[in-house]
Amino acid sequence: MEAANGFSNGGSTQGKPIKCKAAVAWGPGEPLVMEEVEVAPPAPMEVRVKVLFTSICHTDLSFWKGENERQRKFPRILGHEAAGVIESVGEGVKDLAPGDHVVPIFTGECGTCAYCESSKTNLCGTYRVNPFKSTMVSDNGTRFSVVDRSSGAPQPVYHFLNTSTFAEYTVLDSACAVKINPQAPLEKMCLLSCGISTGVGAAWNTANVSKESTVAVFGLGAVGLAVAEGARIRGAARIIGVDINPDKFTKGKEMGVTDFIESKACGKPVHELIRDMTGGGVDCSFECTGIVDVLREAFLSTHDGWGLTVALGIHPTPRMLPLHPMELFDGRRITGCVFGDFKGKSQLPLLVDQCINGEVKINFDGFITHEMPFSEINEAFRLLEEGKSLRCVLRL
Amino acid sequence: MEAANGFSNGGSTQGKPIKCKAAVAWGPGEPLVMEEVEVAPPAPMEVRVKVLFTSICHTDLSFWKGENERQRKFPRILGHEAAGVIESVGEGVKDLAPGDHVVPIFTGECGTCAYCESSKTNLCGTYRVNPFKSTMVSDNGTRFSVVDRSSGAPQPVYHFLNTSTFAEYTVLDSACAVKINPQAPLEKMCLLSCGISTGVGAAWNTANVSKESTVAVFGLGAVGLAVAEGARIRGAARIIGVDINPDKFTKGKEMGVTDFIESKACGKPVHELIRDMTGGGVDCSFECTGIVDVLREAFLSTHDGWGLTVALGIHPTPRMLPLHPMELFDGRRITGCVFGDFKGKSQLPLLVDQCINGEVKINFDGFITHEMPFSEINEAFRLLEEGKSLRCVLRL
Ligand SMILES: [Zn+2]
Ligand SMILES: [Zn+2]
Ligand SMILES: [Zn+2]
Ligand SMILES: [Zn+2]
Repeated sequence: MEAANGFSNGGSTQGKPIKCKAAVAWGPGEPLVMEEVEVAPPAPMEVRVKVLFTSICHTDLSFWKGENERQRKFPRILGHEAAGVIESVGEGVKDLAPGDHVVPIFTGECGTCAYCESSKTNLCGTYRVNPFKSTMVSDNGTRFSVVDRSSGAPQPVYHFLNTSTFAEYTVLDSACAVKINPQAPLEKMCLLSCGISTGVGAAWNTANVSKESTVAVFGLGAVGLAVAEGARIRGAARIIGVDINPDKFTKGKEMGVTDFIESKACGKPVHELIRDMTGGGVDCSFECTGIVDVLREAFLSTHDGWGLTVALGIHPTPRMLPLHPMELFDGRRITGCVFGDFKGKSQLPLLVDQCINGEVKINFDGFITHEMPFSEINEAFRLLEEGKSLRCVLRL
Repeated sequence: MEAANGFSNGGSTQGKPIKCKAAVAWGPGEPLVMEEVEVAPPAPMEVRVKVLFTSICHTDLSFWKGENERQRKFPRILGHEAAGVIESVGEGVKDLAPGDHVVPIFTGECGTCAYCESSKTNLCGTYRVNPFKSTMVSDNGTRFSVVDRSSGAPQPVYHFLNTSTFAEYTVLDSACAVKINPQAPLEKMCLLSCGISTGVGAAWNTANVSKESTVAVFGLGAVGLAVAEGARIRGAARIIGVDINPDKFTKGKEMGVTDFIESKACGKPVHELIRDMTGGGVDCSFECTGIVDVLREAFLSTHDGWGLTVALGIHPTPRMLPLHPMELFDGRRITGCVFGDFKGKSQLPLLVDQCINGEVKINFDGFITHEMPFSEINEAFRLLEEGKSLRCVLRL
């Protein structure tokens, strides 16, 4: 990684603001604008990262559109899937140094809170994902500013999901930067920031899919396919993909999906069909659509007695969970999962090592349907919105 | 157990119908009538049991009142908590013999179905609890009949919850009869048929309460107190009892409850109070009221990240689970639990042995607030309905 070398030995930018390009969202649904922004040096326990690759996920789309009014906050730098190199570190940062290769994580790991010390959760008390947060934890301020065109005064630009990766440089809490093996190709590793970790981890950590498992995946976008990939790697007996769009089956097959159900054209409720296909239901189902009625189908698709449904989709709806309390007594369980239940800083470095040495074979390339320069980010948004890309990796 | 001896050596009744007394429910809410019923010999894989003790649980009350119209079926012999002695066994029964001491279980264990072979569930495929079932599995018939007063013809009397213990003799599927150590006092063991196993098992098997655990129990009836008892035995750090009735705290304290919340008089939502008391919430909560809004409070009372809510209450309501899908992402989980997740025939005999040798100290006596002859069953119903008894054990 040539780009890294410039920073590992000293760095003339350390402690100073950096002016660089960022794709700024100015309002809901408005095309992102490439602005010159000023990126402040990292405060204590923060790091400044030169972003080399970033990709786009549906959560970026949803915040860009401002689908949830309470979450609107502009101007803002979106983006949460990325990989880059540490440019400088703030006071007190011990585990990261300039030149380190890092992957940002939207749900951080401080390592010392009650949550981080528990083996049962990956939700850090301080740095967990929070869609309402738009500033840094340490001082409630922003590290980005842009010059206001009319007044000429600097105007703060808000942060997003602890990450804000649509910028040449970004500032992260050190709890949200995972140091990975520098041999790993960063243009692929950026997918570990969200989509792949979420899906693969849901299969491995949340549902503990095993060789005998039967699995149903509802929604064959990147996260759904990452679930399938995780299940395939564990040797799952059967991976049933469910989507309204039959075109998704081609890609699904490549990624390990063994059976496909076109949900709107299968002639009966999907859960009935899955129960017929599997002698009573799958061992685990994964809901990756964010549609409440699909969540119910996913729940009912599992086998009574031991079925587990993992909710992964974001549900921006006032509707409650469409399950009856008595349905809990059939032995089906449901659980949410954030970032695949991975503790990012503790667990991802090992996963990266295993990917490098071939112990774990995640098909990163299968997810990367497009690559573009950073300047074409609006085109990349369009492709994702229209369902034409799984992941478009942008080179900075 | 003197009563047993008459049957263990041969038995003049074997293979013949037995005429005996039973408390028959003729209609919703009508006082039970002590009738002479005829109890047919056990069919293949069934056993006929002389019931020596039976107690009454809220589920009996609810079916007696016919709260759920679809579950009404009269005339019927209710009752599912009991202990007795095998009088005779049907063809093919290998694990039980006349004279064996047994406890009936409403959720049976055939031992050979996919569910029984799975370590993840105690819901047998064939003999699981089914409130709509009112006949025997093998032939869809009844083993009870009563002479119709007007016509003089025999009329079938329906079964209940695989057990029907409000009778001097009953017929069970052998999958629903647990053979226990004959040294165990049957007048206490009858509580293992439902209340104690359900509550204690929820704490042990479902929630795996441990020494450091903090626990909240919503509803301090017999099941709630059995949860507290299970948590106490595991050495839980704190057991918070929640009830609308402050009188329940006296008994609660005896049974290990360490803190009490009078839910209607505590000035704020119970979950907020519990979070304040415990630094964020309990590790596990148990809902034993059957009230949907209480289920939500129980859910919110647990600690985010790792809290588990175990639903034990029966919810005869059209209302759905009052949880939002996004609330699943805070790391709180919810699960139902039937019969304390005990596999009855595999696990209860060991528990009984442990109770006898003192390894496990369940305070059976604490639950038995009343004892009466079988003939006073209507009085026993009244006591339970008015909340004046925990368990009233009836001697047959
Ligand atoms: Zn994402
Ligand atoms: Zn933490
Ligand atoms: Zn009961
Ligand atoms: Zn079975």
